[in-house]
Amino acid sequence: MIQADNLRIALASRPEGRPSPQSFRLEHAAIPTISDGQVLLRILYLSLDPYMRGRMSAAKSYAAPTEVGAVMEGGTVAEVIESRDPAFKPGDIVLSHSGWQTYAAADATQLRKLDPARAPVTTALGVLGMPGFTAYAGLLTIGQPKPGETVVVAAASGPVGSAVGQIARIKGARAVGIAGGPEKCALVRDSFGFDAVVDHRDPDMAGKLAAACPDGIDVYFENVGGHVWDAVFPLLNSFARIPVCGLVAQYNATGAFPGPDRLPVLMRQVLSKSLTIRGFIQREFIAQAPAFREEMAGWIATGAVKYKEDIVDGLENAPEAFIGLLEGRNFGKLIVKL
Amino acid sequence: MIQADNLRIALASRPEGRPSPQSFRLEHAAIPTISDGQVLLRILYLSLDPYMRGRMSAAKSYAAPTEVGAVMEGGTVAEVIESRDPAFKPGDIVLSHSGWQTYAAADATQLRKLDPARAPVTTALGVLGMPGFTAYAGLLTIGQPKPGETVVVAAASGPVGSAVGQIARIKGARAVGIAGGPEKCALVRDSFGFDAVVDHRDPDMAGKLAAACPDGIDVYFENVGGHVWDAVFPLLNSFARIPVCGLVAQYNATGAFPGPDRLPVLMRQVLSKSLTIRGFIQREFIAQAPAFREEMAGWIATGAVKYKEDIVDGLENAPEAFIGLLEGRNFGKLIVKL
Repeated sequence: MIQADNLRIALASRPEGRPSPQSFRLEHAAIPTISDGQVLLRILYLSLDPYMRGRMSAAKSYAAPTEVGAVMEGGTVAEVIESRDPAFKPGDIVLSHSGWQTYAAADATQLRKLDPARAPVTTALGVLGMPGFTAYAGLLTIGQPKPGETVVVAAASGPVGSAVGQIARIKGARAVGIAGGPEKCALVRDSFGFDAVVDHRDPDMAGKLAAACPDGIDVYFENVGGHVWDAVFPLLNSFARIPVCGLVAQYNATGAFPGPDRLPVLMRQVLSKSLTIRGFIQREFIAQAPAFREEMAGWIATGAVKYKEDIVDGLENAPEAFIGLLEGRNFGKLIVKL
Repeated sequence: MIQADNLRIALASRPEGRPSPQSFRLEHAAIPTISDGQVLLRILYLSLDPYMRGRMSAAKSYAAPTEVGAVMEGGTVAEVIESRDPAFKPGDIVLSHSGWQTYAAADATQLRKLDPARAPVTTALGVLGMPGFTAYAGLLTIGQPKPGETVVVAAASGPVGSAVGQIARIKGARAVGIAGGPEKCALVRDSFGFDAVVDHRDPDMAGKLAAACPDGIDVYFENVGGHVWDAVFPLLNSFARIPVCGLVAQYNATGAFPGPDRLPVLMRQVLSKSLTIRGFIQREFIAQAPAFREEMAGWIATGAVKYKEDIVDGLENAPEAFIGLLEGRNFGKLIVKL
């Protein structure tokens, strides 16, 4: 019998609203065996991202929900410890989608080898990975910022928002960030170099945002929803573009939303201002991924793009860290070190 | 003194909600004199279009509102009766934007000569004019229907909706129309050749629409808003495109809309289905207008596109006809014959 020492975290039950520690179950399982064309992986780092909240619900979405009892899914950086594929050998570091567990079998075709000499391997989960690519593809393909335009993004200290603002500046646009609390705001302004930052906890957030956007807003990169939207909406210029990649502020919402109904007002503005609202998932633009990795690596090398990681130790701490992520308690790209 | 026989209709007061006959004022004025580079026009036909409701309000929009006391604006077909520009001579028939009046001075640069031998001149206000171009540019540039996809449009017996469905079919898509009452539905199905039509007065409109769209909806050309949207929304496929050119069902609305708030639900679907919602005004695509006129004239000549006009006699009947237009009482492109 195989020794049962694959520590993993399964979805214990579907949360109504905010997930709790009881939504997750820590369990021990056998280390998987592999067949031809597969490798056995020891997970080094697990990425925690807001989209995982969607997978915990049964609601129809762009991806199938995680089954109750199944291991939580997620992007991972892992070390190959056994290989039955000629493309990989023990010791290789790879990007995989192995989920919340310490060991996993993976098809070699689903892996991308990482070069630790080129960039810290954790960046494959953040600025050089899915969040950075979400920012890059959504901003450049849908947002299309032009020199002198104003780009607004919330969660600006996070991995998507920080990349959106920095890429906007590279393209000659003004970047205005929204973040929660003085520490995050300072990071956005001083380290990420945004032109202005607004604290969404400020009671006069809407007024502060208006002051930070004297020429209105041409691109609003929507990754949070909620009351940030209400502040942004009146400031949108004609022909503004709104890439929508996340709505973390409403992921935990349950039931109907109280009135008034804002939909007719939205549609009226869509019409009178020729607005573009476009939801997207980064994998729709996957053909751009090699160009993204090349360009983003260059920007990191020259210091044009900076990033911040928030690394939590131990898989057993992943549930609490994830719950905090949905409330904005992380400070930078949230990663669990196993 | 010039004889005062320019009959015209001015905006008497800004309506709250539905316009009434008292919103308009019929008045007599002098026939204008012209200067070099201008022509004097006798208006033959006046186009009545839903956008005029927007001009009657002071609310900020893509165009400045009509001032109270000013002549109502509108597209017109007119005869040149005096010319001080070498490009035009008396007897020429032109497209102008002269508004609700019988005579007007116009800059020659603002006119387009019409050839009555090529198409009935009234089509310059409908299928070969602004409404037809709205359908063409919005459907092809934003909607981008592909063969086999399903395109839904409301007000399908009207000049925009009928063109949308017929162009969709030319591009190989299925056209599903929504119209009010059996007579309009028959026109949409039998004359305009839509694949299916749904009566929006049917108590089970949503169910009928779902049955008419077994593969969901890929393009919803939004020109009405209101309860049609509610029936369309759950049927939208992933990557559906929603060009928004009008919201006639809510133009007369006043005050806040009662809850529940449908905005979070919309944004959730925008995200999970990668929807595109794009407001537009046809003049944004004006560079395509010559190609449109060429192509649409060809489609009319071959019978691939048919049209219907609803012609009302006498400028004094324009207010009542316009009020009816906002309630869907017209039957085809509404035009006033002067």
